[in-house]
Amino acid sequence: MIEVALFGAGRIGKIHAANLAAQPGVQFKYVVDVNQEAAAALAGLHGGSSATVEAALADPAIKAVVIASSTDTHADLILRSAAAGKAIFCEKPVDLTIDRARACAAAVKEAKVLCMLGFQRRYDPTFHAVKTRIEAGEIGTPELLVVTSRDPGPPPVSYIKVSGGIFKDMLIHDFDIFRWILDDEAVSVHATGSCLVDPAIGEAGDLDTAVVTIRTAKGRLCQINASRRAAYGYDQRFEVLGSAGMLQAGNHKPTEVTAYGSVNVSVDKPEDFFLERYRVAYAQEMAHFFDALTHGTPLRTTVHDGLKALELAEAATLSWREQRVVTV
Amino acid sequence: MIEVALFGAGRIGKIHAANLAAQPGVQFKYVVDVNQEAAAALAGLHGGSSATVEAALADPAIKAVVIASSTDTHADLILRSAAAGKAIFCEKPVDLTIDRARACAAAVKEAKVLCMLGFQRRYDPTFHAVKTRIEAGEIGTPELLVVTSRDPGPPPVSYIKVSGGIFKDMLIHDFDIFRWILDDEAVSVHATGSCLVDPAIGEAGDLDTAVVTIRTAKGRLCQINASRRAAYGYDQRFEVLGSAGMLQAGNHKPTEVTAYGSVNVSVDKPEDFFLERYRVAYAQEMAHFFDALTHGTPLRTTVHDGLKALELAEAATLSWREQRVVTV
Amino acid sequence: MIEVALFGAGRIGKIHAANLAAQPGVQFKYVVDVNQEAAAALAGLHGGSSATVEAALADPAIKAVVIASSTDTHADLILRSAAAGKAIFCEKPVDLTIDRARACAAAVKEAKVLCMLGFQRRYDPTFHAVKTRIEAGEIGTPELLVVTSRDPGPPPVSYIKVSGGIFKDMLIHDFDIFRWILDDEAVSVHATGSCLVDPAIGEAGDLDTAVVTIRTAKGRLCQINASRRAAYGYDQRFEVLGSAGMLQAGNHKPTEVTAYGSVNVSVDKPEDFFLERYRVAYAQEMAHFFDALTHGTPLRTTVHDGLKALELAEAATLSWREQRVVTV
Amino acid sequence: MIEVALFGAGRIGKIHAANLAAQPGVQFKYVVDVNQEAAAALAGLHGGSSATVEAALADPAIKAVVIASSTDTHADLILRSAAAGKAIFCEKPVDLTIDRARACAAAVKEAKVLCMLGFQRRYDPTFHAVKTRIEAGEIGTPELLVVTSRDPGPPPVSYIKVSGGIFKDMLIHDFDIFRWILDDEAVSVHATGSCLVDPAIGEAGDLDTAVVTIRTAKGRLCQINASRRAAYGYDQRFEVLGSAGMLQAGNHKPTEVTAYGSVNVSVDKPEDFFLERYRVAYAQEMAHFFDALTHGTPLRTTVHDGLKALELAEAATLSWREQRVVTV
Repeated sequence: MIEVALFGAGRIGKIHAANLAAQPGVQFKYVVDVNQEAAAALAGLHGGSSATVEAALADPAIKAVVIASSTDTHADLILRSAAAGKAIFCEKPVDLTIDRARACAAAVKEAKVLCMLGFQRRYDPTFHAVKTRIEAGEIGTPELLVVTSRDPGPPPVSYIKVSGGIFKDMLIHDFDIFRWILDDEAVSVHATGSCLVDPAIGEAGDLDTAVVTIRTAKGRLCQINASRRAAYGYDQRFEVLGSAGMLQAGNHKPTEVTAYGSVNVSVDKPEDFFLERYRVAYAQEMAHFFDALTHGTPLRTTVHDGLKALELAEAATLSWREQRVVTV
Repeated sequence: MIEVALFGAGRIGKIHAANLAAQPGVQFKYVVDVNQEAAAALAGLHGGSSATVEAALADPAIKAVVIASSTDTHADLILRSAAAGKAIFCEKPVDLTIDRARACAAAVKEAKVLCMLGFQRRYDPTFHAVKTRIEAGEIGTPELLVVTSRDPGPPPVSYIKVSGGIFKDMLIHDFDIFRWILDDEAVSVHATGSCLVDPAIGEAGDLDTAVVTIRTAKGRLCQINASRRAAYGYDQRFEVLGSAGMLQAGNHKPTEVTAYGSVNVSVDKPEDFFLERYRVAYAQEMAHFFDALTHGTPLRTTVHDGLKALELAEAATLSWREQRVVTV
Repeated sequence: MIEVALFGAGRIGKIHAANLAAQPGVQFKYVVDVNQEAAAALAGLHGGSSATVEAALADPAIKAVVIASSTDTHADLILRSAAAGKAIFCEKPVDLTIDRARACAAAVKEAKVLCMLGFQRRYDPTFHAVKTRIEAGEIGTPELLVVTSRDPGPPPVSYIKVSGGIFKDMLIHDFDIFRWILDDEAVSVHATGSCLVDPAIGEAGDLDTAVVTIRTAKGRLCQINASRRAAYGYDQRFEVLGSAGMLQAGNHKPTEVTAYGSVNVSVDKPEDFFLERYRVAYAQEMAHFFDALTHGTPLRTTVHDGLKALELAEAATLSWREQRVVTV
Repeated sequence: MIEVALFGAGRIGKIHAANLAAQPGVQFKYVVDVNQEAAAALAGLHGGSSATVEAALADPAIKAVVIASSTDTHADLILRSAAAGKAIFCEKPVDLTIDRARACAAAVKEAKVLCMLGFQRRYDPTFHAVKTRIEAGEIGTPELLVVTSRDPGPPPVSYIKVSGGIFKDMLIHDFDIFRWILDDEAVSVHATGSCLVDPAIGEAGDLDTAVVTIRTAKGRLCQINASRRAAYGYDQRFEVLGSAGMLQAGNHKPTEVTAYGSVNVSVDKPEDFFLERYRVAYAQEMAHFFDALTHGTPLRTTVHDGLKALELAEAATLSWREQRVVTV
């Protein structure tokens, strides 16, 4: 049994806790959270106990840690866990600054520990099937990627202020999808946007509606459109045009009911938000982590991927601020 | 913790075992199977042990049993479990003969034990949403139900011979859907069919393609079409026409990928077979069973439902054999 | 130029008039209707003139007639047109009685005139594509046909009374689809139904909701479900299960708009009623008629097809009335 | 009857000729083409005759002209037709240079003649329904428009060379859709692209894959993605995100057949190319032209719209060439 400590007992921490508990060959041992009550409650639900960071990292039986605490703690926990020789699963982003993210990448490399980044979308069955089918040659050479990324509603402005901005907080996932699907690196980035949802977001120095264009080394093109509000729920799609066809990754729905009424014919809206939409993805990424730990299968999402996505987010922010095309 | 014994370590037994193990407040204790090796292996996977029927039923700590053994053992196990005062979850059908099914219903009633029948389709999210929306009045009064029920391929003829025939073995589920969705009882049944898939099925005295028409006390109508073979997989749909609209329950798909190629635009086939299609339904029916056991919530599928479905299967068989409309 | 006379200036007559006017090589000459004002108005719209039956049939320049008058006049006009040596296009049904329909078939045969029956559904692009793909072997051997046939609302009871009943008036089209798609003849018919839409229809001795099961000489099966009311419009679908796959013919929609709202995701309802749904089919059947007349291409829908569909309607009526399976 | 002359007997001229011939109250009189044989053939098909530009414009009975000749002749024919006092329907674009397009707009204004530009997409039933529903407030305030515009395959390089480039030749339609749907004007344009389909297009100084981002005065955003090649046919879609929902305009298909096979479930590809996709749009724009001419209903697409779309095409070309954001 691989014994594991979880950092963070919040919304995403709970998801990981359940997946850890259901993981064959894994023993869910500690939960660490500044809110010790929350930590104890979550631990109790799945047969573990509350602990401090120090205690968890000092326990030699702990072979792996899952970092699901607030963004500003990620880098510190990565550095300490790497130093303690633990295998690391860390939620995105590595950090909001490139320098600290690079330091993490270096520390992980030096410590020779496994470090997987939680870009869970790469483990979504629909997204993963598209990737697999592209690699199998179904659409020839990929040429153009269109990514749609819309949240059901904006987070509180207090969160916006510490989020790093829409490009680092929200589009970071889309930048990773771009790199993964087009299998190429950006050479230029153009971004612009508006505050159309809530003026307070603008006053906080951020955007709530953003569009990005990326051109790659091979001349491939990517357009991302993102909004903090979709009245119809969580909208996560992309499509890839290739020389021999196109693949679309669509939204998942709660049921397959179709209703014929006197006004129209309707189906379910997409799954509500990321916890529902990526429920299977969260389970599969955790399985993937322990697979890599146990059998040495290569990681699909590394700290390097986190770093590259962060660089794109920085470039997009700069492009928007200076109203110009940014060369990467 | 409610301690539970499972009878049957085969295909469906394994599904139930995993759902029992994941059930909060439930302790998965014994697996009973004529194949003791299989029983021990399955028990080990989820922290239980192999046992005999006698031992399992004699253990006073066992509060509930899950019967997932072969059909010919169901009635006997129900009778013995009821006599032992255990709560019973039993896979469909109760039995292949109405007399024995009635005896089970009587025994359960006398023993005053909970007895839930595993008509898992009523717990499928899509099917259940249709039921809920009908009850909410979305389509007015239900008038006409069309059920499509097709397996990916026929079972071995050796199984066909002991199956009770296509109406008892396969359409038993559809007869239950009919009663549940139209919320009414049959007054007449017409059935006919053919052997179009495999002549050996006909030689065994059975059909592989069957169609049934049912008329209810309120004059509502139901048509069922069933086949032992659908080249495109497992096809489980129904639609209900009401005075104010229609609701369709469609198939579930593995992913939401759409492919645009030079020949056509395609999506995934339906989920392969019942274990995949009803994966969520199996989990939800088990949660429902323990919910009923713990909180006294009324059972959605009882031994009475099993009996009524069996009566319809008998009527359909008679209608087909005698080529006439059978009054129920 | 082929000069043509049209009998009937009503709803369907207007459709045929426009298609005749647009037909290359055809001169639209006379309109005949008991309502002479309507006849003159329709004729004027497309450059023809009003005439009597006698005058139209006596004009040797008239090579073809289109019979779109009320059902009770069809047989008489067929007999007189055949006697006058005109090529005949006649709306369905030939007649409401089999005897008179047979007499028409015989007269047409003796006069050696072309006589096409207006089963327009065989000319619908979607339905025709299914037929073509079945013939190309795409789904192997057809085994099971499910036909859905629902009107948006019932006609006036005054019409119901002279309609010949739901089987002859409405399902006659579905009986023709059955013969065409399964490419086989019925050996047994079972029909039942209810009055769920309007009790006045029942008082007039008819049904408003009907289901039919047909078994063919080759053991193929067909189920038809029909209703005089679908709150969501005109619903005309069928699906064919074959040994190697399935083909579905779906409804047509006015537009391809998809709306994502806070409640659901919706698309257009099907086209309103038969004039919209079969607009292209009506144009294509007229082109087919003149193609047959000019180039001798074989007719896709003959008076024989009308006769066979009528026989099935009679069998279904008998089955319903006597609550038994009828052998054809 | 309004007598009409048609300039151009090519592919698009033929479409307009058939629509003119079917137009009630319109007499199709002359066809003018440098290829007199083609002109005579097309005229003969619909009851008109071949003529020279001079003769057609000198005929006082001619009230309207339809300009469907090659792009380089548009401006000259507009100027001459306006001078002759004819109502003008002109295919897009007005001209490839803004100066000449402006001269046309001025001439039309001075001559006080009706001048409609053939942006046929605004007359497509699906696109028009989206516009109408936005105006009815269904999605609140429009915020974000994503336009997909892909041809089945590139035109010959000889055509590319005189086309004005991908932005003026192909995206001109999308720029018009942008202005129409977002009901706002551009303030900045960013465009980039690649040659991924055919290097010869690049050698001719053009792109075959292009992406454009537009920001409007009200802060609304538009992304256009375009390719000269889609292996699956002609792809013409857009979606509009608003504050209260989203509307998508999808492709049209030849039939509504769904096929379930052993590999996947498939439907038809989109309509082949613009002549099929916009068949109804071409008919409706011609009806709209004569409606405006006869009843004075305001034009939906004017020479001003042509000019504005051309300005956006110029801005996009500049943005791509100079790799910068262009302020409009």
